[in-house]
This record gives sequence, structure tokens and C-alpha cells, in this order.
Amino acid sequence: MNIILIGSDGAMGKVVTEISKEFGHQVIAGLQSTEETEQSFPIATNFDDLTQVVEGLDLKPEVMIDFSTPQLTEELLAFAVAQKLPLMLATTGQNEEQAQAIQEASKSVAILDTHNTSIGVNVMQEVSKHLSKVLYPLGYDIEIIEKHHRYKKDAPSGTAKMLLDSVEEGMSESATKVYGREGIGEAREHQEVGLHAIRGGDIVGEHTIIFANNQETLEITHRAGSKELFARGAMAGAEFLINQAEPGIYSMNDIF
Amino acid sequence: MNIILIGSDGAMGKVVTEISKEFGHQVIAGLQSTEETEQSFPIATNFDDLTQVVEGLDLKPEVMIDFSTPQLTEELLAFAVAQKLPLMLATTGQNEEQAQAIQEASKSVAILDTHNTSIGVNVMQEVSKHLSKVLYPLGYDIEIIEKHHRYKKDAPSGTAKMLLDSVEEGMSESATKVYGREGIGEAREHQEVGLHAIRGGDIVGEHTIIFANNQETLEITHRAGSKELFARGAMAGAEFLINQAEPGIYSMNDIF
Amino acid sequence: MNIILIGSDGAMGKVVTEISKEFGHQVIAGLQSTEETEQSFPIATNFDDLTQVVEGLDLKPEVMIDFSTPQLTEELLAFAVAQKLPLMLATTGQNEEQAQAIQEASKSVAILDTHNTSIGVNVMQEVSKHLSKVLYPLGYDIEIIEKHHRYKKDAPSGTAKMLLDSVEEGMSESATKVYGREGIGEAREHQEVGLHAIRGGDIVGEHTIIFANNQETLEITHRAGSKELFARGAMAGAEFLINQAEPGIYSMNDIF
Amino acid sequence: MNIILIGSDGAMGKVVTEISKEFGHQVIAGLQSTEETEQSFPIATNFDDLTQVVEGLDLKPEVMIDFSTPQLTEELLAFAVAQKLPLMLATTGQNEEQAQAIQEASKSVAILDTHNTSIGVNVMQEVSKHLSKVLYPLGYDIEIIEKHHRYKKDAPSGTAKMLLDSVEEGMSESATKVYGREGIGEAREHQEVGLHAIRGGDIVGEHTIIFANNQETLEITHRAGSKELFARGAMAGAEFLINQAEPGIYSMNDIF
Repeated sequence: MNIILIGSDGAMGKVVTEISKEFGHQVIAGLQSTEETEQSFPIATNFDDLTQVVEGLDLKPEVMIDFSTPQLTEELLAFAVAQKLPLMLATTGQNEEQAQAIQEASKSVAILDTHNTSIGVNVMQEVSKHLSKVLYPLGYDIEIIEKHHRYKKDAPSGTAKMLLDSVEEGMSESATKVYGREGIGEAREHQEVGLHAIRGGDIVGEHTIIFANNQETLEITHRAGSKELFARGAMAGAEFLINQAEPGIYSMNDIF
Repeated sequence: MNIILIGSDGAMGKVVTEISKEFGHQVIAGLQSTEETEQSFPIATNFDDLTQVVEGLDLKPEVMIDFSTPQLTEELLAFAVAQKLPLMLATTGQNEEQAQAIQEASKSVAILDTHNTSIGVNVMQEVSKHLSKVLYPLGYDIEIIEKHHRYKKDAPSGTAKMLLDSVEEGMSESATKVYGREGIGEAREHQEVGLHAIRGGDIVGEHTIIFANNQETLEITHRAGSKELFARGAMAGAEFLINQAEPGIYSMNDIF
Repeated sequence: MNIILIGSDGAMGKVVTEISKEFGHQVIAGLQSTEETEQSFPIATNFDDLTQVVEGLDLKPEVMIDFSTPQLTEELLAFAVAQKLPLMLATTGQNEEQAQAIQEASKSVAILDTHNTSIGVNVMQEVSKHLSKVLYPLGYDIEIIEKHHRYKKDAPSGTAKMLLDSVEEGMSESATKVYGREGIGEAREHQEVGLHAIRGGDIVGEHTIIFANNQETLEITHRAGSKELFARGAMAGAEFLINQAEPGIYSMNDIF
Repeated sequence: MNIILIGSDGAMGKVVTEISKEFGHQVIAGLQSTEETEQSFPIATNFDDLTQVVEGLDLKPEVMIDFSTPQLTEELLAFAVAQKLPLMLATTGQNEEQAQAIQEASKSVAILDTHNTSIGVNVMQEVSKHLSKVLYPLGYDIEIIEKHHRYKKDAPSGTAKMLLDSVEEGMSESATKVYGREGIGEAREHQEVGLHAIRGGDIVGEHTIIFANNQETLEITHRAGSKELFARGAMAGAEFLINQAEPGIYSMNDIF
């Protein structure tokens, strides 16, 4: 599989480059913010240059993988459509306008759009929706805990937000989000969902959803061991995409 | 709801008696092994005497709840059929013959047959089957851990076995059960499922299933807070049964 | 052991009454806010009346156990000093003035002052101080998570605050307390301690301290199974107190 | 710091080589089983050759780090004594005779002998001894759970055995080891310690000790994120050793 990698100088971009070899694939061109020259493939720092780089290649690109930033999403989509390349989109945080551009582009090319490429997290998302649907109306309270490394600046994590979305779908109503509790207040309401962001060390990522009712709790926890996990998931997604005859929006859950 | 309680002098029997009041129901007769006289309802020590006790009651029994032993199952079924009473069967460990008798009796009366009356455990069972079905073929290894009080004599717990059944259904093949590991042996095979029984203190019951693959684990844990949980579940089951027009075998998952 | 129980109509008061029998002790008088008459011992609703009640008793009181509110602490101390009774003080949330009154009274009678009567929590407190002392200077980040039932109105729990005190002692500096994280901010600073209050179901009480550094985490978790735990601890404390010849302030850690 | 690395072609050897650079140190010679030539330093496959390699070096070795096998321990000790080099000994499983040889060699050179170079595990060991000492006589039951990757052939892990040693020291008696429970037996005895080996995925290493008594559990869990953890610990140990003026046996706990 010949890959064009967007965000090739980022932490995830480097892991994707390594892991692609293990899968028997290769990155044949990259787009990145710096002119770093140690890459094993030609790079560009904007999409115009990338078009030229691709034209000069002996190998034909088959798929794009994006681990960059939402600021690039619209240009990226235009490029994917122009090149007729399926797109594994693992960048998170798109705004409404960018989200619409993704929908539009998916009429022309196959796009797998996900906030988290790990299989475990995607299965957890599905199961959480089901558990919320069954347990919330029976009186179970729901709380979400996530743990990440000390350097993470945003809270809660994109994955925690994604899990909250699934929980709310299951609840069939909007949750009252609570991002921490302090002081003397009122007792918890049933439709509250607490979101707790623990930070410390270099924890790669851990997410827990708790369903608590009288005399019992049911907890589901996902623990990521390393960034490789996400690169492997992106690889699985890209392999899936090149086998899709039809354009459209796909999710990780379509793979399995 | 007027209840006949089988096993009324057992630990669970006592909790059921208490909890039934909270639900606005009442135990109107009990079958138990001892002639203990402190009960608030008439008791019998065998089914012949129980028939007489029931005949002498002013109130009409509506449902039976069984937290006794499988040794009584066959007589109990005969009694339920004779009295035309739905049966909440929460006793575990029936053998093949007894299991068949349950099937037979379910042609005449409604029976809810379960190894664990907690809603959480029943939902966990359902989810575990799904997770095994999705994750096992992708290479995830599966292990089950259960924790119970220091007095428990059997291992693994009935609930752990029930969860294993669900896992095996999901795996679509029989697991190689491993009940502990010691010494220098071979690496774990994929179809192995380790079952680990932790014992200590007065832990009411905790069950965890781990799905582990490269760089990630997904865990689901159920924790029971007290025996009341199981009494409440039995109450929900009994309430469900008296509303079933048809005889047949039901499960906790039919309730919600 | 003949006990005067302060707060005899509270949730903990009722459990203490039950558990005292199991230990071969008895509550011989109670102070409570309501004139509830179902108690097995005489009651008073203020300390003047309590003095009269005690004078009328055949049995000589030996120790007091307090599970009421800090509003009563000063009157309670005066009573204990007047009656020359050792005092097991399990009420939390005293202000500066009340804390000083406790110090003063401890010159006349033996007082065991604790925020949590469980042995496990007290051992955890001791260990947490040690771990913070060793690990914090080596770069480990510290976070505290507590879980309680949906009815709890204050956060974080008194026990979490007590654990934080121990952690700060170990750190040898004041922690920057963070009671939740939301939005895009700065990376975590080393002297931050996150305190996270999870609420749901009827969780009796769970406390976790996490020490996280590069490639490793060390966690210590205490889980309370029922209110009986705290009654048993109070009983152990009271038994300890009546054997102390000297007045003074004692802690749960002095028992073992 | 100039390092001679024993076991330089092993999984840990490779990580030590990488991490040493990050610490500003370097491996200047290695002993390994294969003649692999990709190393950045000269290698030998036996200690005679290693002596020659060291003689030919421009740089003076300052410390040895061993992540090989106990079969090499005696030759290794002889080499360290001959070269007057302090020794960071991270290989486990030495027999009685080899253990005695370590004692003997420690009269001439400084040796840090450990089963696990992680700071967290060593602190956990210390704390576990303390907790066992306090809680075991009060009736708390103790169980140990460890989790490792699917390829691990021995059980329980060396670290679990090390933790058991600490627990037994605290208990002041020998534990009855139980390596799994299956079937209908007797209730757990107090002096039993269950050791449970979970295997799956590529879990680097997780160890939990549970102390369980009536209505409470206290758990301590260590989770290793990657092999780097152990390389960093070895580096800290080696740095400590070259600052010791005196020969002798040291432990990781001496570092902090």
C-alpha cells in the first residue's frame, strides 16, 4: 500500500512511518510543517508543493492518512478529491464548517473519519451506547474518568468527549456535564455525567465509564499502551478504505 | 405480591423477606430446612407440609422465589406446576436431569431461570458475548477474574462460569480453561481463557473480564455491594413473571 | 463496655448500636435530635437532659462515641470533661475554634480524634505520606480520586482531604489543589494535586491515590463495603481508649 | 559514565543501550550470545574475549550492567572483581550457590542486586512488608495478582515472588501459597496467599496486592508502561554505584 502521510513530522506521523513497514506498506510522500530532511520519503510543506511531489513519484499513491490538525482539513479534502484518493482521517476537533466539508468530500471519495483509531476504543464506544440505553432508564448514574500524561493541555480528552456522545445517544437526552466537584452543593442529579480528567506521568491514555446504582457498579476501562496502537488502527483503516468501491463516510466499526 | 419463598432461612432468604416489604410485597409462606420459628410467616420443612400450609392461608400466593439448593429443584417444579405458580429460580448448579425438568415444567408455568439476579451481571454477560465475538477473532486474549469472600468454598464462582459460557458463545469455539498458572511452561495459546478466583475478607462479589491485545486492554468489571442487590433483582424478576400470560423459560434480560 | 452514643438517631448511630452488641458492649444512653422512642436505651435531646439521664442509670458509663455534627463538639467536650469520660470523636469538619477546644479538653480526658474510623484508611494515610515523601521529589505526579453515593453533597470527601494532608506532609510543601480540569489550559505542574469526586449509585466510599511518572504508575485504593466498617473501627477505638491511663489526643494509628 | 553491558543483544540490553545516551552515558563494550555486528560498541561472546576487548579500549569502563541470565553470574562476578568494577545486577533467578558468590564478590566491589529495577516496584515492596505487618495480624487476607504478556512462559513473575517475600516478612510466618483455585474445597485459611498469573496481549507488567477484611479492601497496584522503565532504573542504580566508596551489597531502596 502506497501512503501519502499528512502530519509526517508529528509524534503520530513518525510512528505511522515505522509501523507501515511492519505491515508491508510504505509512506511515499509526506506533508509536514517543517523542512526536516531526515525522512525516507519526499516531503512538502503545502498542498501545492505536495501535488508536484506526487507527480514526480514513480509509485502511484493509493491512500492518504491524516494525523495533522483540523486547520488543514479543508485543503486536505480538496487534494484528496482532486487526486481521487481515499482518506483515513484521524485528526480531531473539526468545527461545524469543516465537518460539512468532510460530508461533501465523501460524495467523491471514501473517508474513514474517527477521533480514535484504536479498535478497543471504538468497540467501547459502541458498548457504552448500549449500556447507557439499558441502564440509565433503570436509575444507573454515569461518570467518565480519563487519565493522560502530564503534558496534555486540553481536558477532557477528545476520546472522552466521543464516549460522552455515545453515552448521550444511549440516554436519549442531553447530559448535564460536570467537570469536577468542589464545595457543599446539591446531591447529584440523575442526568448529570461527571467528566474527570486525571493528569500525571506519561500515561498514554486510559478511559473508564462507570454505571452505578444501588449495590452495584459496572465499569468499562480501556487502556492504551503506546502510540503504536493508534498507528496500527490507522493502518487497518487504510487497508479497509482501499477495498471500498463506493465513496462515503465510514467508521472504525465498519472494519470489523 | 404474595410470595412463597423457598430457602427462607438461608442468608439470601432473609434478605428477600426484608426487601419484599420495601417493594410493597410480602412473603406469605416459606420452605426451609430448620424449624426456626422467628419468621413472620408460616413455614414448612418439606413440600407436602408446604401444600397444607398454603391451603390454610387466607391470602392467595402469586409467585415463588427460590434461593435454596438444586437438590430441591425437582420437587419444587412439581409443586409450582401443581399450584400453577410462576417461579423465580435463582438457585444454581442444577445437573443435566434437573435442567431438563426445568424445561419440562416451563411448558406449564412461567419460569425465570438465572444464575445471578443482578441486572448488572446480566447486562455484562450480554456485552461480554458481543465483545468476544468482535475481539477474539482479531487476536485479543481473554481472561476472567472473580473475587469473593474468604468463606466461599467453590471456585470459580457460578457467575464466572456463566460469563465464560457467554465468552465461549462469542468466541464460537470451546475455550481451553486454565485455573491458575505456576512453573515454567509454554506461552499462552489464543484459545486459552484463564479463570482466576481471588478469595479474602467478606467481598460480596466482583467479576472482571479482560480483553488484551497489542498495546491495549479493554476490561469490564461488575462489583456487587451487598446481598440486597440479588434480592432486588429477584423481586424485579417476580414482578415480571406475574405479568407473563404465557408459560415458558425467561431470562433476566427479558425484563429490560 | 457501657457506651454513651452522641448522634444515636443518625445512620451511623444506628449501625453503632447494632455492632456494639456483636462486640459484647452496649449503648446505655443516647443524645439525638429527635424524640424517636424506638431505641433500646434512654435518650436526651440536649446535654442538660443527658446529664440527668446518666444520673438515673443503673450502669456506669465508660466511654462516649460521637457520630453527630461539629456544632455539638464544644458542648460534648464540656460534658465529657465533667463526666470524666474518654471520647471517641468520629465527627468531622470542626473549625479552628472547635479544634482548639478539642486540644484543651484532651488535657483532662483521653480523646481519639479521627475523620475516618476505618483501619484501612488510617493505614493508607500513613503509607501515602511515606510514598509522597519518597516519590514526589523523584518527579512522580500525585492525584486523588474518591467515589461516593449520589446523595453526598460535599466534595471532596473529608477522607480525601485527610489523605491530601498526608500527601502534603510527605511532599514537604503545599499542593496546588485542582478540583477538575476543563478546557484548553497549561500542562500540569508538578506541585498540582488533582482531587476528583465521582458520585453515583450508593457507593459507600472508595479512595485512590495515584503516583505517576515516566512509564510507571503506583496506585493505592481503599474500598469501604458498608457503614459497619466505621462502627467496628469506632468500637476498636473505644476499647483502646478505656485502656489509656493518661488523658491526651490519640489517633487510630495508635491502636495498632 | 562508561558502561560494560552484559546481555547486550537481549531485549533489555537494546533498551539500555538507547536509554544510556539519553542520560549522557554510553555503552563502551558488550557481552552477548550472538556475534551480531550492528552494535555501536565492540562485543565479545565470552569473558576471556571481553577482557581483551576492554584492554583495547581508549575509554576506561566505570560500571557494569547485567541483564543476561544467572548462568553467567559466577563468571561475571569474577570479571567484575578482576576489573574492580561496580556491578548493577538486574538478572534474576540465581540459585543458592550463585547467591553466595554474589555475597563473596560484594566484599571486593559494590553490587546492587535486584529483581526489578523500577523505583515503583521497590517502593511497593517496602510498603507491602509494612502493610502485611500491620494488617495480617488484624485478620486481613492477602492475595497477589500479576499480569504479563502472552509470551511469558514462567509464572508467577519474579517480581510477584519478590513481593511475596516482602509479604511473608511482614506476616512473620511462611504463607501457604495457592496458585489458582478450582473445584469445591475448603474455605480459605488466613495464612494462604493466592498468587494469580494473568496472561494476555503485550502487557508489560502489572502487580497488585490485595488486603481484604470485613467491609474493606486495601489494594496497591504497580503498572509498568514499557521496558524503558527498567533501563532507566538500571541507569539510576549504576549512577548510584559509581558514587559508593565502599564495596558491599546495595538495593534499589538505598538510592532514594
